[in-house]
Amino acid sequence: MGEFDLIRRFFAPLSQRRGHPDLLLAIGDDCAIERVPHDRDLVFSIDTQIEGVHFPHHYAPRRIAGRALAAATSDLAAMGATPVCFTLALTLPQAESTWLSEFAKGLAETANRFELALAGGDTTRGPLSITIQVHGTVARDRALRRSGARPGDIVAVSGTLGDAGAALDYLDVPSPGPLEDALLARYHYPAPRLELGQALAGVASSAIDISDGLTSDLGHILEASGVGASIDLDRIPLSGALKQLKGANAVQLALHAGDDYELCVTIPRQRWQDLPGSVRDQLTAIGCIEEGAGLRLSDGNGREDGASQGYDHFGKDL
Amino acid sequence: MGEFDLIRRFFAPLSQRRGHPDLLLAIGDDCAIERVPHDRDLVFSIDTQIEGVHFPHHYAPRRIAGRALAAATSDLAAMGATPVCFTLALTLPQAESTWLSEFAKGLAETANRFELALAGGDTTRGPLSITIQVHGTVARDRALRRSGARPGDIVAVSGTLGDAGAALDYLDVPSPGPLEDALLARYHYPAPRLELGQALAGVASSAIDISDGLTSDLGHILEASGVGASIDLDRIPLSGALKQLKGANAVQLALHAGDDYELCVTIPRQRWQDLPGSVRDQLTAIGCIEEGAGLRLSDGNGREDGASQGYDHFGKDL
Repeated sequence: MGEFDLIRRFFAPLSQRRGHPDLLLAIGDDCAIERVPHDRDLVFSIDTQIEGVHFPHHYAPRRIAGRALAAATSDLAAMGATPVCFTLALTLPQAESTWLSEFAKGLAETANRFELALAGGDTTRGPLSITIQVHGTVARDRALRRSGARPGDIVAVSGTLGDAGAALDYLDVPSPGPLEDALLARYHYPAPRLELGQALAGVASSAIDISDGLTSDLGHILEASGVGASIDLDRIPLSGALKQLKGANAVQLALHAGDDYELCVTIPRQRWQDLPGSVRDQLTAIGCIEEGAGLRLSDGNGREDGASQGYDHFGKDL
Repeated sequence: MGEFDLIRRFFAPLSQRRGHPDLLLAIGDDCAIERVPHDRDLVFSIDTQIEGVHFPHHYAPRRIAGRALAAATSDLAAMGATPVCFTLALTLPQAESTWLSEFAKGLAETANRFELALAGGDTTRGPLSITIQVHGTVARDRALRRSGARPGDIVAVSGTLGDAGAALDYLDVPSPGPLEDALLARYHYPAPRLELGQALAGVASSAIDISDGLTSDLGHILEASGVGASIDLDRIPLSGALKQLKGANAVQLALHAGDDYELCVTIPRQRWQDLPGSVRDQLTAIGCIEEGAGLRLSDGNGREDGASQGYDHFGKDL
């Protein structure tokens, strides 16, 4: 069996196993064909992950696939979209059967979890990298953008922050304890906030997913919206595991470390009060939007001037 | 100026300079937003080009960008689609101002030529590679697929074949003559057959663009359609430059070399006769579809059994 057939063998089933009614034609032609319902907008985002930059060398192929697809899907969550399909551009040093089988398994698990069909792709020989473009749809004109934050809006985040960043210290620990394991799970298995994003479409005034760190990603909202914000450091949600393992450093990790894939949103005050309890329970208010540009961080002991210190490996989303 | 800003400086103008009415939001958010007209289907394809595989080492950045975008756009031509927008995942060893400026220039020229807006992208540090996903639309249910060829259909190709493949021999020639230059132009500046594809949407029974070689790509149509074909080698269109420079080898190059980005289509006989002259003039009938599987090549002197010998660097389109 040639390398071409080997790859087809592993990826074709992903296209057939779980279709999506919007996807009229998937892999095996010059293009895939998608029919977007007339009352919905298409949203899409492309993301590359490179060995040694976005994941460690010799990282398990099943996790490489799962993390790459989850990270891309998080951009759909940040738009309030419902997933439809994805394309995969996979560059590999060689087509090795065991590696491909595990990679395809991780991709299939994650695609099924998010109800994403494989629409097409390209495989090439070269240094290991994975580029994924995800497609979703959202009701017309309801997509969440970065540019709608207005003075007075509540700034809120989902889940807890800093866990995935802290996990980097434990990736090579031979037998991690339960606290370390809790943080490692956040790194290995990102859980994009799809349902929360969908619930906030047309409700939040702006949204972004936290991939590079809270200060960096909230900074993108502030820049796109032409506003500033004050954040109360004491209100930033931290997991018990993070607090126990990192003590005084926990807040810094929550502010500046990436890979959490939680949402950071701004919501007009009245709408915040009107949120269904089931939605508001997934969010923590940590501050509010102000007119003056810049991000102001403060805690019980006074003020700390904040500067973006998120992860910037150069480039990033265009 | 940081590397992040440098990249933004070069690519943001591409997004603003030429918009497309279907593209509601381009670079600068978690996702781009596209509104597909209700009477059209979205088609899309992702392609990766790697230094040393798809283009030579130290190839001019302006040409790298132009070739990568043209190659991707050729998949839209093969579907009969009208271009809308594209995303760019660019991996670079370093952000070097001159290189980026030339690359962006090539990308802008080519994007303007095909009326493609830059919708978004991702930049990462690593070995040079360019992944592009193109989006187009086509009237509902009129997209050209590979699977519709039926016995009796005419097999036709556009333009001339083999030129880009022959050009590989002259890439490093210091002062190429006019014949070599004619072939080199085919390699450096692929011209996807967008208008021809659009004219054949809903008319041709199948189509593919010739990126890997005629036998290889026609082979994909035969496989997807469950049919075979006979091709008359004497009718394969060859350029004067190819014939003069390659003599007896010209036909082999036309059969097996890639990168021409012409279309290979099948058309029911009656529709072929009904084609407007302006469309048929762009095509050469080279054979016909038959029931028996396989590709049969013959010339005035008898028969040659054909086997796919196109370029397969492993992988390829999923």
